[in-house]
Amino acid sequence: MKSYPSLERDLRKLISTKAGVIINPERLAELGRDKWFASALPKIAVAPGNAKEVAVVLGYANKHGIPVTTRGAGHGYVGGCVPVRGGILMSMHRMSRIREINGEDFVAVVEPNVITGVLQTQVQEKGLFYPPDPQSYKDCSLGGNIATNAGGPRCLKYGVTRPYVLGLQVALADGTLVRVGGRTHKNKTGFDLVGMFVGSEGMLGVITEATLRLLPLPPARVTLSAGFGSMQDAAAAVQAIFKAGYLPCAMEVADSFTLQSARNPHKNLKGTFIPPGKAHLLVELDGQKASVLSEGKALKALLTKNKALEVELATSPERCERMWALRRAFSASLKATGLTKLNEDIAVPRGRLVDLITFAEKLQKQTGFPIACFGHAGDGNIHVNVMVSKEQQAKRPKEIEGVLDALFTQVIKWGGAITGEHGIGLAKKRWWNEATSSELRDLHTRIKKALDPKDILNPGKFV
Amino acid sequence: MKSYPSLERDLRKLISTKAGVIINPERLAELGRDKWFASALPKIAVAPGNAKEVAVVLGYANKHGIPVTTRGAGHGYVGGCVPVRGGILMSMHRMSRIREINGEDFVAVVEPNVITGVLQTQVQEKGLFYPPDPQSYKDCSLGGNIATNAGGPRCLKYGVTRPYVLGLQVALADGTLVRVGGRTHKNKTGFDLVGMFVGSEGMLGVITEATLRLLPLPPARVTLSAGFGSMQDAAAAVQAIFKAGYLPCAMEVADSFTLQSARNPHKNLKGTFIPPGKAHLLVELDGQKASVLSEGKALKALLTKNKALEVELATSPERCERMWALRRAFSASLKATGLTKLNEDIAVPRGRLVDLITFAEKLQKQTGFPIACFGHAGDGNIHVNVMVSKEQQAKRPKEIEGVLDALFTQVIKWGGAITGEHGIGLAKKRWWNEATSSELRDLHTRIKKALDPKDILNPGKFV
Repeated sequence: MKSYPSLERDLRKLISTKAGVIINPERLAELGRDKWFASALPKIAVAPGNAKEVAVVLGYANKHGIPVTTRGAGHGYVGGCVPVRGGILMSMHRMSRIREINGEDFVAVVEPNVITGVLQTQVQEKGLFYPPDPQSYKDCSLGGNIATNAGGPRCLKYGVTRPYVLGLQVALADGTLVRVGGRTHKNKTGFDLVGMFVGSEGMLGVITEATLRLLPLPPARVTLSAGFGSMQDAAAAVQAIFKAGYLPCAMEVADSFTLQSARNPHKNLKGTFIPPGKAHLLVELDGQKASVLSEGKALKALLTKNKALEVELATSPERCERMWALRRAFSASLKATGLTKLNEDIAVPRGRLVDLITFAEKLQKQTGFPIACFGHAGDGNIHVNVMVSKEQQAKRPKEIEGVLDALFTQVIKWGGAITGEHGIGLAKKRWWNEATSSELRDLHTRIKKALDPKDILNPGKFV
Repeated sequence: MKSYPSLERDLRKLISTKAGVIINPERLAELGRDKWFASALPKIAVAPGNAKEVAVVLGYANKHGIPVTTRGAGHGYVGGCVPVRGGILMSMHRMSRIREINGEDFVAVVEPNVITGVLQTQVQEKGLFYPPDPQSYKDCSLGGNIATNAGGPRCLKYGVTRPYVLGLQVALADGTLVRVGGRTHKNKTGFDLVGMFVGSEGMLGVITEATLRLLPLPPARVTLSAGFGSMQDAAAAVQAIFKAGYLPCAMEVADSFTLQSARNPHKNLKGTFIPPGKAHLLVELDGQKASVLSEGKALKALLTKNKALEVELATSPERCERMWALRRAFSASLKATGLTKLNEDIAVPRGRLVDLITFAEKLQKQTGFPIACFGHAGDGNIHVNVMVSKEQQAKRPKEIEGVLDALFTQVIKWGGAITGEHGIGLAKKRWWNEATSSELRDLHTRIKKALDPKDILNPGKFV
């Protein structure tokens, strides 16, 4: 990037508040990273206060060919918002208003930096429901969820973020503000441009407002927690649940290494039931109270018949939450082993779950690196965590890369996806070419050029 | 379009079978229309037998700048596949194979001309479920469903076609074959190009294969049929069902005119329960048997409490189907009045249902044209049918246009959509500019130019 001596002065003219232009090096360093390990320093950061300010900054940057990388709450896992080409870091942290929650239209209208969990709580108080539940829901923003099409355990029944976005206001690279979609629950007016922006990782436009679809709040839920002798048994139980015609909200598995790490003394898990065995399955149902109670009992019997060593059924919200605490603490439990987890959120065709587990076990034996698998069994979207020490990372980087290469090569061979919910960002860029055909990459380039001909939006990523 | 004397000879070289090139004028006339009234004659028609033949025909047409309009089963309601610029009509009727139904991966792989109902029956036999259920499911094709992102009653709970498309093979305008998406239930590899093609009405590419997402088959269903004193009462009951935390598969309403037309002697409806009153509400639940039975009873009580004049609960598949027969015959019942129905599938924000009904009643009084409203109450997606005689169509076309204009203007003012599920095609083209901003139209043009720079794919439509 060329040097722009007047950058700060120009941006201050475009952003109304002093706090909206950031030059403090420490703050810039914070804004230059997400939850992945890579980071980069932007030249400067702006925090627009409204859609118009977003648009004028883009118009300015586009005119001068300055890179703009947009950042939500910075809770991504793949370095997607790291400003690798420097330039302007556009932080959305000043756009955090919930504009509307409408219980008759079943929509919420939000600015991009509303925290997912905050919206969930507020709509719940009105008897409404916003299903997408990424693991970091207490910290991540809806704009970031939309930019990455975030998932979560409940996606099994409810789908990822995409189906909950009815309309968007987007600032395009050239500074045009445009509304796509609307506030109706069905809309066939033109191409699906909402879908084009959802999951585009900040490379096609900047989301300045979203109209989200809400559902009626299911009045009750039950959770089942079961231990199995092996991951193969747990995977077979997942298929048995589907065969019986159930589509639970969530079906989460964890392997022996993950479960064992949770059994170690752990401050977050006091009083939590941790089932015996070498694999864990968590199942959640929601709906009318009588229905989920009878279905919970039926599933308990079904799991017991399908080799579960022990099954607990939780029917009160508090006890359900305790069961989820175990699942939600897996990341922390694994980190507490002292090792670094290289979390690869691959997805395999649903029937390949056992093959994936067997492959990971073999890879672990061959290479000596522990591999902890847990995640969304129902979706075939498993977080495969290669566990490495700091020392190994320093001394054996090639070997570690080899383990990941072997994993991704196999996943691609099965017709799987190198990322089920985190996105490509920087972390998966290494396997982007392997995972896509030249025709598919060309199609991405055509769309990118049509919307951002000067390549100013989040440059240096996968397109 | 210029004249191409060698068109037939050239195409015969590209398509392997004699039957794959069609020049018979009567057959061409048949292929030049769908279920809407407009039609146009293509110069010639081709029926490719596989993806490669689709691609080479497109490559040829692109080179020579010849329009190509793709046609599925021809059951669209908006003239979307009418070849208004002549050229080549690409009929998919020779690509009707179900390649795979996989009960472990929960996917089906189909060629574009597989009939929706045929797939539904075949997956059901394996304990699987393909939810999208457009009214014409016995006749329409999956390729057409994808091209129009088709809906149906069950979309209330299950969503439209989009969430059931995991992967596509698409032939682009220049003859490139490309695979987008895949066969995993979650996939965050790159932009959402599957979504870009779904609903693009044949203007961005030609679908040659689809990998569809299947669900476990819910083992049971119940249906409720209720009569109300007014549409306002029926709409209030819909909100009461949501308030109680239910998200039924379907909630369908019909107004007095529609209901009355069904009460007239009608061969399709022998032995069908037609409730009393001036409005009809049909509610369907699916799931585990004990659950839907108890929920069905609870909903019966809830409807009775919410001013239903009479409620019937069907718990056997046969009785449920009888109730649906009433709903499915509404189109035929209305046609049996001798009038032509101008079916406008508008969608309003969900809370505007009563406003829409009141508006339609007022419009009817003002203009004298009967207006029959029925459809997907839960989605706010109501088929507003302006009923006109042949004579009125011939003598008072301006007046009829005025009625439709008034309807669409009001719908747009409410933040509604001019089409909830049928698409724009030719029928809604008249209101396209009113329903969209210049920025939004420009965005459509950019995408169109990026994928089809010579504008050969279904030209003369809304972009």
